[in-house]
Amino acid sequence: MVEPATATKATAPAVPQLKDELDIVIPTIRNLDFLEMWRPFFEPYHLIIVQDGDPSKTIKVPDGFDYELYNRNDINRILGPKASCISFKDSACRCFGYMVSKKKYIFTIDDDCFVAKDPSGKAINALEQHIKNLLSPSTPLFFNTLYDPFREGADFVRGYPFSLREGVPTAVSHGLWLNIPDYDAPTQLVKPLERNTRFVDAVLTIPKGTLFPMCGMNLAFNRELIGPAMYFGLMGDGQPIGRYDDMWAGWCTKVICDHLGLGVKTGLPYIFHSKASNPFVNLRKEYKGIFWQEEIIPFFQQAVLPKDCTTVQKCYFELAKQVKQKLSKVDPYFDKLADAMVTWIEAWDELNPTGASVPNGKAA
Amino acid sequence: MVEPATATKATAPAVPQLKDELDIVIPTIRNLDFLEMWRPFFEPYHLIIVQDGDPSKTIKVPDGFDYELYNRNDINRILGPKASCISFKDSACRCFGYMVSKKKYIFTIDDDCFVAKDPSGKAINALEQHIKNLLSPSTPLFFNTLYDPFREGADFVRGYPFSLREGVPTAVSHGLWLNIPDYDAPTQLVKPLERNTRFVDAVLTIPKGTLFPMCGMNLAFNRELIGPAMYFGLMGDGQPIGRYDDMWAGWCTKVICDHLGLGVKTGLPYIFHSKASNPFVNLRKEYKGIFWQEEIIPFFQQAVLPKDCTTVQKCYFELAKQVKQKLSKVDPYFDKLADAMVTWIEAWDELNPTGASVPNGKAA
Repeated sequence: MVEPATATKATAPAVPQLKDELDIVIPTIRNLDFLEMWRPFFEPYHLIIVQDGDPSKTIKVPDGFDYELYNRNDINRILGPKASCISFKDSACRCFGYMVSKKKYIFTIDDDCFVAKDPSGKAINALEQHIKNLLSPSTPLFFNTLYDPFREGADFVRGYPFSLREGVPTAVSHGLWLNIPDYDAPTQLVKPLERNTRFVDAVLTIPKGTLFPMCGMNLAFNRELIGPAMYFGLMGDGQPIGRYDDMWAGWCTKVICDHLGLGVKTGLPYIFHSKASNPFVNLRKEYKGIFWQEEIIPFFQQAVLPKDCTTVQKCYFELAKQVKQKLSKVDPYFDKLADAMVTWIEAWDELNPTGASVPNGKAA
Repeated sequence: MVEPATATKATAPAVPQLKDELDIVIPTIRNLDFLEMWRPFFEPYHLIIVQDGDPSKTIKVPDGFDYELYNRNDINRILGPKASCISFKDSACRCFGYMVSKKKYIFTIDDDCFVAKDPSGKAINALEQHIKNLLSPSTPLFFNTLYDPFREGADFVRGYPFSLREGVPTAVSHGLWLNIPDYDAPTQLVKPLERNTRFVDAVLTIPKGTLFPMCGMNLAFNRELIGPAMYFGLMGDGQPIGRYDDMWAGWCTKVICDHLGLGVKTGLPYIFHSKASNPFVNLRKEYKGIFWQEEIIPFFQQAVLPKDCTTVQKCYFELAKQVKQKLSKVDPYFDKLADAMVTWIEAWDELNPTGASVPNGKAA
C-alpha cells in the first residue's frame, strides 16, 4: 500500500534553487489546502493560480504563500478577444499562467497531488528534482543504457559517441505519479483497483523522433526555451473533447524540441496522486480523443518543420498550418484548434514582447 | 557498497521456463567456477561454452552442468574456411555458439558476472527476467512513461494509442550490471572508483529509430527472430580493434529490428559484474573504435533497408553491402568486416539449413 508522506519540513533544502527564476502554476476550482503539505518546498517560490469555473467564487490560499491569482474575468480583461484561446472549465486553462509568468522556469502541478515518499520513506521534493533535470543536459540523439548520464554515480557507457556527450539543453522535465496512475477511462474501468507502487529510480531522455504521452499533473519546463509550445489547446466548456490538453501540448512540444535540438526528460520526480477521477465522466470527455489520437499521432510522427523555423513561435505557427491542412478532415474541431494555436502565439507575444516573432507562419 | 548475492538456492523457480528451448552461451578462457553461484538458475539449461585462446588448454566445468564445448580446433573443423569470420582471442568468438545452437532462445553471459541482489537482498534470477522480457511484447512505436506496460502493476498510460497496444514481438533483452559499470577506457581512467549501485526497477523498449550501446555481458535474444544479425564482428587477434564486438552486433541488430518490426528491451535484469578490466589494455583495443564510432553511428542512424529485405539474412547481406560502400573509406578494416559479415551468414545458413536465404544481397 502506497501512502503519501506526512512530515516534509525537515527535508526542505536550505537554499531554494532558482527562487527568483521559477513560478509554480496551479489550475484549480477549490481552496488550496493541498499546499500545506508542500509548504516547506513551495513557500519560497511565487505561485500563479489560475482559477477555473465560476469567477465569483473565492479560492482560499493558505497563509504565507506568495501568489497572484487569475480568474476568468481577469483572463478576459487581460487578453480581450484573444481570451478565446484559453479553455474554460478544464484544467487546460493552466497555460494562461505560463503566458503571464515572467520567469525562466515553470513548474505546474495539480491540486490533488501530494508529496510522495521514496523507498526509504523520505519525503520527495519534486520541485528540487525537476530543477536538477532542467539544469542538466539531455541526450536525445543516442540512448544511454544507464539512464541519465549526468546523475551522480552514473555516466555514459562504453560505445556512447564522445561527440554527443555534451548533450543538448533540457526544455522539459516530465515527472511521474505514485498511487493513482494516469490511465485513460477504458483502463480505469478495467482496472479500478490498480495502483502504481513501483518507484523507478531513473530519469531518462526521450529519444529524438519518439513521441510520448505528456501528463500535465507534475511537469516542469524552461519557459524561455519552449514556453510558447506549451499551449494546452481548446478543451472543456463548448469543446467536443477534454483530457487531451496535456497530450496536445506534449505532441507539439516534442516535435518542436526535436526540431530545435532540445531535450525532454521523463521519470523522477514522483508525486503522490491522491484520487482517481471518475472514469464515466472521463470516458465522456475522452471518447473522441480515443479515435482522433489514432490519426493525430501519425500526423505528429510525420510532421517535418522547415529549416527556417528557428524559433518556437515560428515552429508553432507552422504546426498550426499543418494541423489546419491535415487534421481538419478528421473533424472541424481541428480547424478551430489551429486558429486558437495562432491566437495563443499572438497573445503570448503581446504579453511577452521581447523576442516576439512576426506571425509570418500564420495558419492560412 | 554493492555486493553479490551469496545464497541463491532458495530462489530458483520450481519449473524452469523454456528449459528445452534456450541455450546459455559462455565465451571463456578459464575454468568456469563462476557457474557454482549460478547453479540453481542455470543447471536445468544446456550450456554452449566457446573456449577462446589456446585450444590445448582444458577448461573445467563444475559437475552437474549439461554442456557442449567448442575450442578453436572445433570451430575450424566445423566451419572450414568460413571459420575466418569467427574472432580469435576475443570474447566476440561467442557468436559461434549462437550459430551452432539449435534452440529458439539464447542467453549469453560473461564469466566474470555473478548473481546480483535486488534492494530487498534477494538473489536475482537474471535468466528468469530475460525470459519474461522476451516472452512479452515490446512497444517501439510510442513511449510509455510507466515503462514496460506488460509488467505486473503497470499498463499503458492515458494518451497511448490503442492501435499500438498489442506491441510487437521482442527480439532482444539487454540486461544491466551492478558494481562495475560497462565504461570505455577513457571513462575507466577518469573514474576508477565509480561503481553502479543504483538499482533501477524498470524494463523499457528502446524506441524505433534510436540506437543504443548493446553490451554482450548479460544479453538474451530470440534466435529465430534475430539470430543471424547477432554477429560479433572481427575483433582481437590480427584485427585493429577490440571491445566493439557487442556494439557492432547491437547497431546491426537494432537497425534490422526496426526494419522488421521487432522490439529491443533494456533494463532488468541486473547481474553483479565483479572486476573492472584493465583500462590501459582496453584503451589499446578501443582507441580506433573511439574515432570510428563517430562515423559508424551516423552510418547506422541513416541506414535504410529496402522493402524486399524481409528476412534477417537478406537485411544482413544488405547491411554488409552498405558497410562496404560507405565505411570502407573510414578504414580498409571495414572492407574485410563486410566480407566477414557475408561469410557469417553463409556459415549460419550452412549450419541452419531450414529457411536459409539465397545470398542475393551479397556484398559486391
